[in-house]
Amino acid sequence: MHGYIDNKYELLKRLPRAEGQVRGIHRMVEEEAYCIDVLTQVAAATKAVETVALSLLEDHLGHCVAEATRQGGAVADVKVKEASAAIARLVRS
Amino acid sequence: MHGYIDNKYELLKRLPRAEGQVRGIHRMVEEEAYCIDVLTQVAAATKAVETVALSLLEDHLGHCVAEATRQGGAVADVKVKEASAAIARLVRS
Amino acid sequence: MHGYIDNKYELLKRLPRAEGQVRGIHRMVEEEAYCIDVLTQVAAATKAVETVALSLLEDHLGHCVAEATRQGGAVADVKVKEASAAIARLVRS
Amino acid sequence: MHGYIDNKYELLKRLPRAEGQVRGIHRMVEEEAYCIDVLTQVAAATKAVETVALSLLEDHLGHCVAEATRQGGAVADVKVKEASAAIARLVRS
Repeated sequence: MHGYIDNKYELLKRLPRAEGQVRGIHRMVEEEAYCIDVLTQVAAATKAVETVALSLLEDHLGHCVAEATRQGGAVADVKVKEASAAIARLVRS
Repeated sequence: MHGYIDNKYELLKRLPRAEGQVRGIHRMVEEEAYCIDVLTQVAAATKAVETVALSLLEDHLGHCVAEATRQGGAVADVKVKEASAAIARLVRS
Repeated sequence: MHGYIDNKYELLKRLPRAEGQVRGIHRMVEEEAYCIDVLTQVAAATKAVETVALSLLEDHLGHCVAEATRQGGAVADVKVKEASAAIARLVRS
Repeated sequence: MHGYIDNKYELLKRLPRAEGQVRGIHRMVEEEAYCIDVLTQVAAATKAVETVALSLLEDHLGHCVAEATRQGGAVADVKVKEASAAIARLVRS
């Protein structure tokens, strides 16, 4: 069972909001809104997606990684390295 | 006329791809995919939205801001400050 | 003459602060400070360096790029593309 | 004992490189280098500082947080929340 399952319903409520914000960019480009206003919408959409990512990550650290470190050994190392690589991708994206 | 209008059709083709990637996050959470795989999808969605933003910004600098700086004076200052604030929001988001 | 020259003295005052914050990370690691406190210092150092970058970029848009767009033609295109590539590197770093 | 102690000497070797890159920005502004070249140096400095942060974070997850989750209970929750807040600051900076 994955870490975010406890928060699944919260995530499934938050995701349509992020999708709505990306669709908002689309509608604004279609209606030829002012560039800077579209960019403000892009920043809002990025923030919404990022919030989902940070929530997933917290659940992952608190469940999957925590479970692995309780077992210790190679499994723990693999999970910590995997989570760190995912964090690096988020920081650099 | 806004800067991105020349690229409007390219943007309108690229945006559904970004929307599809955000919907992909939703589907993966619903199907209870592994957290790290969801986070990889989140990074892809963020990159897709960012690419749209950078394309909008380039068009904005090459059209609206360029037009204002050709006029010079206060209009030019306002447009440069406005674009810089939008860039700061992107860099910090 | 480059765009940031008018702000050169302000930049030269702000940069030692950014350098001081990076040296602060060093000192904290040497003194074996708590990881999370070191990371807070890292975020402060990153923000200081970013603020310098955004200030440079605003001056560049308002001077070098503005000058090129006033001349128009290929020079303007080259400068807008060059600035956009620099913005992309900042957004993705 | 903090998580990064095993890597302390590696970090202390990498930090002067990050400091050198921030000093490089200073020198370039002093010598009035071209804005875009200064921004390229800023991106390199940011990346160097980020690499230090990601290395600290991996050690923190593999040691301090792992130790707390092995103990379980409230301590584990606190450490996971604290690490997640630090990750959020990095992602948003």
